[in-house]
Amino acid sequence: MKHLRSIAEIGTDAVMRILDLTDHMVEVNQRANPKVPALRGRTVCNLFFEDSTRTRLSFETAAKRLSADVMTFTVGSSSVSKGESLRDTIETVAAMGVDAFVVRHRSSGVPWQVSQWTTASIINGGDGWHAHPTQALLDAYTVRTELGKTGSLDGLRVAIVGDIRHSRVARSNIEVFRALGADVMLVAPPTLLPPTPLSPSTADLDSIIDEIDVLYLLRMQTERINDAVIPSIREYSTRFALTPARAKRLGDHVLVMHPGPMNRGVEILVDPAEIPGAMITRQVANGVAVRMAVLFDLLASTERPGALEVSV
Amino acid sequence: MKHLRSIAEIGTDAVMRILDLTDHMVEVNQRANPKVPALRGRTVCNLFFEDSTRTRLSFETAAKRLSADVMTFTVGSSSVSKGESLRDTIETVAAMGVDAFVVRHRSSGVPWQVSQWTTASIINGGDGWHAHPTQALLDAYTVRTELGKTGSLDGLRVAIVGDIRHSRVARSNIEVFRALGADVMLVAPPTLLPPTPLSPSTADLDSIIDEIDVLYLLRMQTERINDAVIPSIREYSTRFALTPARAKRLGDHVLVMHPGPMNRGVEILVDPAEIPGAMITRQVANGVAVRMAVLFDLLASTERPGALEVSV
Amino acid sequence: MKHLRSIAEIGTDAVMRILDLTDHMVEVNQRANPKVPALRGRTVCNLFFEDSTRTRLSFETAAKRLSADVMTFTVGSSSVSKGESLRDTIETVAAMGVDAFVVRHRSSGVPWQVSQWTTASIINGGDGWHAHPTQALLDAYTVRTELGKTGSLDGLRVAIVGDIRHSRVARSNIEVFRALGADVMLVAPPTLLPPTPLSPSTADLDSIIDEIDVLYLLRMQTERINDAVIPSIREYSTRFALTPARAKRLGDHVLVMHPGPMNRGVEILVDPAEIPGAMITRQVANGVAVRMAVLFDLLASTERPGALEVSV
Repeated sequence: MKHLRSIAEIGTDAVMRILDLTDHMVEVNQRANPKVPALRGRTVCNLFFEDSTRTRLSFETAAKRLSADVMTFTVGSSSVSKGESLRDTIETVAAMGVDAFVVRHRSSGVPWQVSQWTTASIINGGDGWHAHPTQALLDAYTVRTELGKTGSLDGLRVAIVGDIRHSRVARSNIEVFRALGADVMLVAPPTLLPPTPLSPSTADLDSIIDEIDVLYLLRMQTERINDAVIPSIREYSTRFALTPARAKRLGDHVLVMHPGPMNRGVEILVDPAEIPGAMITRQVANGVAVRMAVLFDLLASTERPGALEVSV
Repeated sequence: MKHLRSIAEIGTDAVMRILDLTDHMVEVNQRANPKVPALRGRTVCNLFFEDSTRTRLSFETAAKRLSADVMTFTVGSSSVSKGESLRDTIETVAAMGVDAFVVRHRSSGVPWQVSQWTTASIINGGDGWHAHPTQALLDAYTVRTELGKTGSLDGLRVAIVGDIRHSRVARSNIEVFRALGADVMLVAPPTLLPPTPLSPSTADLDSIIDEIDVLYLLRMQTERINDAVIPSIREYSTRFALTPARAKRLGDHVLVMHPGPMNRGVEILVDPAEIPGAMITRQVANGVAVRMAVLFDLLASTERPGALEVSV
Repeated sequence: MKHLRSIAEIGTDAVMRILDLTDHMVEVNQRANPKVPALRGRTVCNLFFEDSTRTRLSFETAAKRLSADVMTFTVGSSSVSKGESLRDTIETVAAMGVDAFVVRHRSSGVPWQVSQWTTASIINGGDGWHAHPTQALLDAYTVRTELGKTGSLDGLRVAIVGDIRHSRVARSNIEVFRALGADVMLVAPPTLLPPTPLSPSTADLDSIIDEIDVLYLLRMQTERINDAVIPSIREYSTRFALTPARAKRLGDHVLVMHPGPMNRGVEILVDPAEIPGAMITRQVANGVAVRMAVLFDLLASTERPGALEVSV
């Protein structure tokens, strides 16, 4: 694997390989000293044209656990504000000796563009409404381990609720869950569904809530209200939020997931600490392990077989 | 010791233990290679909701000297600006695998709140007007070593001058110096004293200046003038600043201290470089060593006895 | 060598020594693991009072390759905005234990001031219109290696084109190329030449373009137009830019250089990817190696002879 730009592009086998590798990384993270020399001498550059503390910190932590060096390039402090082209920026930073770029950009497709201008590996850290593959992998890993499975997710029923249309998390999660054999139901008002159907959908959360294994809540951008895409937060919450009443209806085995940051009072009206199946912080912890697995898969040479065993 | 949130909370014995441990760290810092493996594999997160380059860099330097990894989370670049709750932020960052948080926040008590939401150690890096315990420890360490003492500071006369009321540095220093047996005199106009007396006070600096061992100047927030709390900078300086005339009256043994950044021309009208007892840069240097001692005390396992001896 | 503040100050012998040392660093950077323990335990502080992602990242990468710790201090997040004096800032940061400061400031001469306030080594990362010695060294290194030379650049004909007057890059490059024996021709309208002549000049690029070995394009600050220093971007480009027509006239051996970031459409109207002699990304790559050489020359003790050989 050279790049991780979308789930569709790498295919199911690579997804399975990364999920298996993540098991090893979870074990590394549980050690008294969770630092291994696997990527010593490698440089990972976080290239964030859009703000994201949690994703940036997660990649930074993952890279450091593997002893890689991390460069952080955020647009606010860059020559991009002097009008430098994206291509010149990439070629410049790459020339300093970067092995992998983690790219976040508000425009779809930028990670593909970037990979034309450098020989480094590209990891999509979120591009526009398009894809966020490491989020999808950590979500799939979380579901798989919580349900005690090691292979596919055949027959698992996943409901993704909220603003599917503008969500890269939704797109990548639809891809990864379907690749693993799960059934994905999209739950949203028609205005928040994509023009092209990606999976079966409904606007009636209550009609399906008793028959799901995973309830995946998306973050509702409150800016959408001004766009007149949804009439009001209150109406959205009434129809699509996890309310106390809905939380009571959830089966004991149902996992409740959210990519964060949560909009309490909008898409979630209960305290996740009181829901047995709430996975929100587990997702974050697994995020570090999944990103370690991705970095290792992309950058570790086969000449370092003991890379995960020797503690430094 | 699990947390360092205030001097009062840890008590005199812990203060003494950290000051003794600081001696070792000063010795480490004097080596040709001042880097030791003591905290390899540990992660320290600087969580700064208020700007502070000097405190942040001091903790970052301390952590790196001990080979810990450092994550920096400042509010400007965070999901907090997207409206995420403090609790969700803490739980998210903690889930990535943080061993200690250094928390700075403009509201008093935040470090105690934070410690309810994570199992990591909490170090108070300054909360509102309330506490700044590592500043107090570095000040106590500076006084103790400069005066050639190793135990208590019985009978030492410390004057703290300036805006006591709004100063977390003053509150923590009153606690630490009294815990070590010193007498603390507060010098301020009544409007800049706290409502509840914390120690004896006077508004007449000249009446006590001949009888002190330590002159501790606080930073005067010039914004206070607009608050009508003090009539003018000039009047403040005349009554409370270290002027050339007052500098001449100071005994040769008197230490002049300031937490920085200094407001030259406000609380200090002489060049500290010309005062034999000026401790300002010594305080900064000791700050790194004290923070190394605190991090070591909180995070080092007893299974690494050679942690400070082996150079990496 | 204690400081690198300007090319003139260190002299030709030191320039030659650093260029020779850069050869070793280029070799280090080509290894599978380009990380060496040469500066372990040393701390380099990037002190940037002016924004510069590329120079900052280049120094940061260079320091990390040599296993030094890096502190980054940018003015936006600092006490300088609270009105702290430059001197107090330097003395404070230095007291934390800094071995070298990389200083960038909009005022000429600041690196010399700074070196009066600390015992650390000072590297000028760009001061006003005055000097940018590491840029000059990387440019000289690039020319020397591309032309297969190891010693002087006797007889080489270098044209520097653009806003010489306001360019620290031009000043340092004139110094370094003349020190190495090259002939330097400045190409600019009279309004963009310095009041004191630094080297022969012309306003007619076409009259000299057939007889040069190096075409060094400066970045045109488009703000100059508002200053009425140049009549329009179009007129500037017509007379001084690398146009397709001029690119065709360049001899095969001619190196085309730019310090970046490029203003495409202003000083360069062709795609550098289509010019065989374009050195822009090579300059960036060499920049890391040159800065490694400078840091090594300033900070490595002679007690670590194997510092570049042992991989960590």
